[in-house]
Amino acid sequence: MQFTSSQSELSNHLSLVSRVVPSRPNHPILANVLLEADAENGLVSLTGFDLSIGIKTEFAANVLKSGKVTLPAKLLNDIVSRLPEGELTLKQSAQDEETINLVSTSGEFQIRGLNASQYPNFPTLDEADPLILPIAALIEGLKGVLFAASNEDTKQILTGVHLKGNQEQLEFAATDSHRLAVVETPLEESASQESKLNLSVTIPAKALRELERIISSRLEDETITLYVSDGQLAFDSGAQRLVSRKLDGNYPAYSQLIPKSFKRTAAIERKSLISKLELVSVLADQKNHLVKFSLDTKKSEVELSVDAQELGNAKEIIAADITGDSGEIAFNVKYLLDGLKALPSTDILMQFNEPNQPVIFSPLGGAKMTYLVMPVQIIK
Amino acid sequence: MQFTSSQSELSNHLSLVSRVVPSRPNHPILANVLLEADAENGLVSLTGFDLSIGIKTEFAANVLKSGKVTLPAKLLNDIVSRLPEGELTLKQSAQDEETINLVSTSGEFQIRGLNASQYPNFPTLDEADPLILPIAALIEGLKGVLFAASNEDTKQILTGVHLKGNQEQLEFAATDSHRLAVVETPLEESASQESKLNLSVTIPAKALRELERIISSRLEDETITLYVSDGQLAFDSGAQRLVSRKLDGNYPAYSQLIPKSFKRTAAIERKSLISKLELVSVLADQKNHLVKFSLDTKKSEVELSVDAQELGNAKEIIAADITGDSGEIAFNVKYLLDGLKALPSTDILMQFNEPNQPVIFSPLGGAKMTYLVMPVQIIK
Repeated sequence: MQFTSSQSELSNHLSLVSRVVPSRPNHPILANVLLEADAENGLVSLTGFDLSIGIKTEFAANVLKSGKVTLPAKLLNDIVSRLPEGELTLKQSAQDEETINLVSTSGEFQIRGLNASQYPNFPTLDEADPLILPIAALIEGLKGVLFAASNEDTKQILTGVHLKGNQEQLEFAATDSHRLAVVETPLEESASQESKLNLSVTIPAKALRELERIISSRLEDETITLYVSDGQLAFDSGAQRLVSRKLDGNYPAYSQLIPKSFKRTAAIERKSLISKLELVSVLADQKNHLVKFSLDTKKSEVELSVDAQELGNAKEIIAADITGDSGEIAFNVKYLLDGLKALPSTDILMQFNEPNQPVIFSPLGGAKMTYLVMPVQIIK
Repeated sequence: MQFTSSQSELSNHLSLVSRVVPSRPNHPILANVLLEADAENGLVSLTGFDLSIGIKTEFAANVLKSGKVTLPAKLLNDIVSRLPEGELTLKQSAQDEETINLVSTSGEFQIRGLNASQYPNFPTLDEADPLILPIAALIEGLKGVLFAASNEDTKQILTGVHLKGNQEQLEFAATDSHRLAVVETPLEESASQESKLNLSVTIPAKALRELERIISSRLEDETITLYVSDGQLAFDSGAQRLVSRKLDGNYPAYSQLIPKSFKRTAAIERKSLISKLELVSVLADQKNHLVKFSLDTKKSEVELSVDAQELGNAKEIIAADITGDSGEIAFNVKYLLDGLKALPSTDILMQFNEPNQPVIFSPLGGAKMTYLVMPVQIIK
């Protein structure tokens, strides 16, 4: 194997795949990145794979000799990212084909790797039907729900995002059982496919965070192809492919949780609600994370209050357009802030019935997002 | 107590004193900041003190009622720093004089404190002679040596910086027994004092890091006053006062360690030496932090090499003006980088005799700094 590429290109692609490479895997070769050079097509590909999530990325390079090798991902990434801008040549050592000479303008590294034949096969999913998804819809959906997925591995299916799709729309949902985020994005005609889109799959949030990173550099009017097979799925953007196992099990029937009608609503400016909540959370976080909303219909304002008992207390007032009766309702301030930060509008609408029933936060105008939070019972 | 000040002014002064307030002190009141308001002079002072290091800072405010109270430093700092720009009023509650109402444009916090009478006395050092030190000399000296002081509490006197002064110059020194940094700064006539300057004191590095922060916002042509008593010392800049205990014991006679003459020298461009060392340190840090310098007098270059055995190896070449014989010498790359980053010049001079004797790095031109590193024996 021998190829020459620019330091910046190699470094960018390495940092992309390095993120899925485990630091202390059961099998040593999984801590390596697979480098494959193809002289015929002038292409180099890099692969990182922990057997659950994998990323393969491809770029054009001046390939003098085809071949493949695996190298320690972290070490290679640390070296290449620190090298000065300019051309880099990677070539197999004449003495030892598992050793790579990395030659830059100022010096030379020799890095020992492991034989590529031991590297696991990267799933191809060739047999699955391709589903074409618009990048813009994916970006909007992931931004709106990813934060609400559970981070606890024991919660299994809740560590994923549920994705449903038909010809008209994609629906993203995530919940950790304390709160639920749902985003619906319409699909335009142009994005519809030959094969009928009828999708229902739960994808690990960890894989989708990598997908977010991959598509963040794409134009919003581009598309990405999704392949779903029995146990696995792949997102393919042409030069990059992300594969992941699917999460097994039935995703909760979340739409039943969302109330259909509401007795009370409050329209509030989102950013000032966030900054006032962050302020009172300084005290709330010392105690039980509890913040109380007191809606005053007549005054058209909401009082946000925290009582941290022996430490002190806090009160902030915010203007709101309120319909329905005045009243009090309390929340875990952390859950509230997560959702408010993900809502994509200038003003938000808060809707609820009774102080012990689910509360819905949604954007006023624009995108279609639903954020459901269970209130906390206030002991009087 | 009652006063009004701007959010930004209160926040800046709070963050200054909060840094020395311990998070989990033996006595609860030491986790608090002391607030004192003086209506007669329109001044508010804040004090943080862990009985070893203390900072007191003073600013003008609209004081309606004199008084003092202590409040939890972290909580108060977190709240005030998040409040919007604008006027803040702090006043003692009518019901409970240890409770402070903090009123901003948008809301109100009540914070419970502890009675100021229990707060320890802040040392005054009134009886000590004032020594006038130029800010510029202090900044230069601290930047050049602070990094070399030991971070291990068990090393006692080596956790400090030794400061010597006479009418002509100030000399700063720090060593952790692996390396030594010395900076000499000349004193101008104008900075000389009525009382004869004859200084020799070891000051905890932790206190000097706070001093660095305090004087960083001062003009270089200003001065600061140092008071030294038997067990303590204070730096007074007018509005801010930093007190610290002195470190007891005899500081090592470091000047004996610095060779007077050298057989070999190499002049090297500092920044490119740093970036090449950072590059090869990726491999060196996987093993024993060892980097070898091979000086080639004829070629006028130094080869920096690392052998990380089963992981690989690295070689980088850097141009150098060399006098004396070619030869090899090895270092711990971490110690080397620390010193090179602190040296204040474009080019540096490396001087040594034999590969097992101390090496001196110093700036070529400009300030007077000496960085001594013990080389590591190479096993051949």
